[in-house]
Amino acid sequence: MSKYETGLGRDAANHQPLTPLLFMERSARVYPGTLAVVHGAVRRNYGELRDRCVKLAHALTKRGIGRGDTVAAVLPNIPEMLECHYGVPMAGAVLNTINTRLDAATIAYILDHGEAKALIVDREFMPAVRLALLQATVKPLIIEVDDPLAPEAARAETLGGVPYDALLAEGDASFAWPMPADEWDAITLNYTSGTTGKPKGVVYHHRGAHLLAVGNVLSAEMVKHPTYLWTLPMFHCNGWCFPWTVTAQAGVHVCLRAVRGADMWRLMAEEGVTNMCGAPIVMATLLTTPEPDKRALSKQVKFIVAGAPPPEAVLAAMQAAGFAVCHVYGLTECYGPSVVNEWHGEWNAKPTGEQAALMARQGVRYLALEGLDVMDPATMQPVPADGRTLGEVMMQGNVVMKGYLKDEAATGAAFKGGWFHTGDLAVKYPDGYIQLKDRSKDIIISGGENISSIEVEDALYKHPAVAVVAVVARPDEKWGETPCAFIELKPGATATAEELIAFAKQHMAGFKVPRHVVFAELPKTSTGKIQKHVLRSQAKET
Amino acid sequence: MSKYETGLGRDAANHQPLTPLLFMERSARVYPGTLAVVHGAVRRNYGELRDRCVKLAHALTKRGIGRGDTVAAVLPNIPEMLECHYGVPMAGAVLNTINTRLDAATIAYILDHGEAKALIVDREFMPAVRLALLQATVKPLIIEVDDPLAPEAARAETLGGVPYDALLAEGDASFAWPMPADEWDAITLNYTSGTTGKPKGVVYHHRGAHLLAVGNVLSAEMVKHPTYLWTLPMFHCNGWCFPWTVTAQAGVHVCLRAVRGADMWRLMAEEGVTNMCGAPIVMATLLTTPEPDKRALSKQVKFIVAGAPPPEAVLAAMQAAGFAVCHVYGLTECYGPSVVNEWHGEWNAKPTGEQAALMARQGVRYLALEGLDVMDPATMQPVPADGRTLGEVMMQGNVVMKGYLKDEAATGAAFKGGWFHTGDLAVKYPDGYIQLKDRSKDIIISGGENISSIEVEDALYKHPAVAVVAVVARPDEKWGETPCAFIELKPGATATAEELIAFAKQHMAGFKVPRHVVFAELPKTSTGKIQKHVLRSQAKET
Repeated sequence: MSKYETGLGRDAANHQPLTPLLFMERSARVYPGTLAVVHGAVRRNYGELRDRCVKLAHALTKRGIGRGDTVAAVLPNIPEMLECHYGVPMAGAVLNTINTRLDAATIAYILDHGEAKALIVDREFMPAVRLALLQATVKPLIIEVDDPLAPEAARAETLGGVPYDALLAEGDASFAWPMPADEWDAITLNYTSGTTGKPKGVVYHHRGAHLLAVGNVLSAEMVKHPTYLWTLPMFHCNGWCFPWTVTAQAGVHVCLRAVRGADMWRLMAEEGVTNMCGAPIVMATLLTTPEPDKRALSKQVKFIVAGAPPPEAVLAAMQAAGFAVCHVYGLTECYGPSVVNEWHGEWNAKPTGEQAALMARQGVRYLALEGLDVMDPATMQPVPADGRTLGEVMMQGNVVMKGYLKDEAATGAAFKGGWFHTGDLAVKYPDGYIQLKDRSKDIIISGGENISSIEVEDALYKHPAVAVVAVVARPDEKWGETPCAFIELKPGATATAEELIAFAKQHMAGFKVPRHVVFAELPKTSTGKIQKHVLRSQAKET
Repeated sequence: MSKYETGLGRDAANHQPLTPLLFMERSARVYPGTLAVVHGAVRRNYGELRDRCVKLAHALTKRGIGRGDTVAAVLPNIPEMLECHYGVPMAGAVLNTINTRLDAATIAYILDHGEAKALIVDREFMPAVRLALLQATVKPLIIEVDDPLAPEAARAETLGGVPYDALLAEGDASFAWPMPADEWDAITLNYTSGTTGKPKGVVYHHRGAHLLAVGNVLSAEMVKHPTYLWTLPMFHCNGWCFPWTVTAQAGVHVCLRAVRGADMWRLMAEEGVTNMCGAPIVMATLLTTPEPDKRALSKQVKFIVAGAPPPEAVLAAMQAAGFAVCHVYGLTECYGPSVVNEWHGEWNAKPTGEQAALMARQGVRYLALEGLDVMDPATMQPVPADGRTLGEVMMQGNVVMKGYLKDEAATGAAFKGGWFHTGDLAVKYPDGYIQLKDRSKDIIISGGENISSIEVEDALYKHPAVAVVAVVARPDEKWGETPCAFIELKPGATATAEELIAFAKQHMAGFKVPRHVVFAELPKTSTGKIQKHVLRSQAKET
């Protein structure tokens, strides 16, 4: 043993588990009187918020819920959801946030697979939860949230569970909650959307949650005391870890039950919002808000977008409206965003179109992600940085999940060769920035040639009448597959299929041009992602 | 085993050692053409800086220096010193930065104790190093830096070692340097100033260096691409980890061989400095620079001060000159600063005197430090948060050293009870902020009563003629000890001992008033700390 390894071991004095839970204790200690959370008439400071979290932890502990137990939550972006991100792991338990738009069968599957011991539910979502509980095997303790801002009709719903506030009253704010035994301990459980097969349970640990939460501060250039508008669902990758990020910076969590234009503009103006996150659909909602409902912004709002690159026109409109847009990329498996389009100041001098093209790239690794590359999954060799050769996006680092719950085979496959296989296909440019070309399963193979559905979509987005477009593979006897475009037109705009096909021909090689164009409202997930698997089924019948 | 611990282990895909070394690779990959380092006529971008670091790592590796080996450096704040912070640990070795003002005997002791395999030295410091090498047992490989900005006379000095640039030329920038085997691996070695007994070798690890470097970004509210002026010596706690912090943010390292007023003002103006750090003496040097040498600042400069609280008058003058001052506190054992005076916006409305009193407090833990308290070291119980009860400052967390090299007894004593005992005495206020009252060994015990030397100094600083003051214990037959004040007057100011004693009587209890006042230039360390142990010897003879 070297001299640097003798008598220099880990000790409580010099080694503590990394955890985001201490962020709450610190902000409550340093800034107890500072505003922490806003929800309608509710305004609580950090002292009050911290005490509610610890009471929740204590109440759960007293009811026998602890280390290794799962607490599920079906909640919108309300204060109780934020409290769960601290209170549940402060009890040693694992928070499983469930997408509020899921059907009863999927909720039942998740409750059973995660072995939920408790379920915290907002009354608006009780109809689906009630059905789910009838189908599920587990019998979790039901905790009911009666939010005054919930739809009036929903507030009569009950499953006869413990009211959330009554549960809190069972807890003591002086409870000395236990630190995680190890930073590798699970903190949350997030089920993938499961477009194919059963959803998989992605397990996050305290170490990764701490590191990504702090990484967000750097990527968002977030100064102290930000005011954060909760447009991104907390059930989605734990809101990209922002429940911990905003608290680390002693910022204000401005809650929002539903992403509605007028509400967002009002809260931005009234609360002085500085940061928000979301899919491009949130930007679209902001921009298409009727003028009388829009408000003047007193400061620039930083908008972090993911899910799809922001289209050029949207980008320009957002900038004109006073937003600074930052494009990030990630997956449930990497705690939300782990790749960021780091912007170079000199790019601001380029023409708008070029800027949009640069911003469409997903970018480079977060400081908190140790490795990012585009590789041939067969050889695990990086593709050339030529902006053309397709490969699979691979990640390596501390903000990659602990693994899939109770699914060693899937975990092993995802981590084959010591890298996390994202399933996303991309190219790498000479400057090292990556750009997604498709999901592995979204690529269209026509006459043996790969067609990136994103590339075809990008071209069609340039047509002035097109609002939203998604291109998927349609089975074809001769070519194997051909591209089929599903299109939403802008309000009041018109265009025919022939017109759009002719337009596409001017912008891409002939074999990439969609053979079919369908005008329809596109099916989207609650986070604004277009559900291509649904479109693929529809394309077969076209 | 719980379901959250089965099949969810560490894998290269999801677990990588935390290390600040990747910050350099990332900035070089993302911002290769961005300015990284400025030193006189030398201006290098991140691509160039990174390549020089990796060449250094490769050259050291080829010469057989690797894991567990120590590479010592006696260098001022020049580009080579910055490169050592990456190149040496990229070779797997441990960087031991040595205070350039140390005497030959102490340097010899450090080289032997650290078992230096190589020694990188600037020609200005060769006289002491030559003597040290004559006394030392180790025979390190000597690497000589010939800095064009070194004093002309010094540049003729040589020990016949390898020129630094020749060493770099032996290395290849494509070298695949090895990641640390474990984040607990040593990265640097810093000897304490050793005011009593032999200096102790404080070992830092990759994990702590990563976490504190990122923690600095948060505490300094540092946005991307800061311009950092190197006023704080990099040999001092590795410049509080800022060689890694500034690089993480792809900022500009503005080098500075010596802290001189005119140079600092010129560089601040010419390079657009945004951040700097130092002891109060650096602020004094800035403020007392002759007016013709001062420059207008185009932006506010954030000045992080440690070592002693900034006196009220200095604070006001700094603010008037365009600086934002942030007070931090730490020790070599905690990677530099780990406690920060988190400023509350509403305090800006208070009178200047009150603001200074608030800023004089050391404050609260960094986000990167898990535990901070003031305790009775006998019982390990926290003192009441009454702003009066004295206790010892204790720390617990990931930015506390790995331990003292080859000194298990000292490490064990420092970590007794699972907390790092700082040896600093402090009180804790009702709001949780701590304030240092003294080093354990600086406290004065007079007639059985504790007298905080800092409290007496604070009172004397209020006298308009006083520039610098230090109060130490003087042995006294009747009282055991009495306070003795050593004073530097402001240029042109006059005051008698009687006048100052009378002034002190108006501001404190009689038993705290200094019985002796000595006018003299105070002995300071190279980082601006007053050497009280020297004054204690002098006080005995007064």
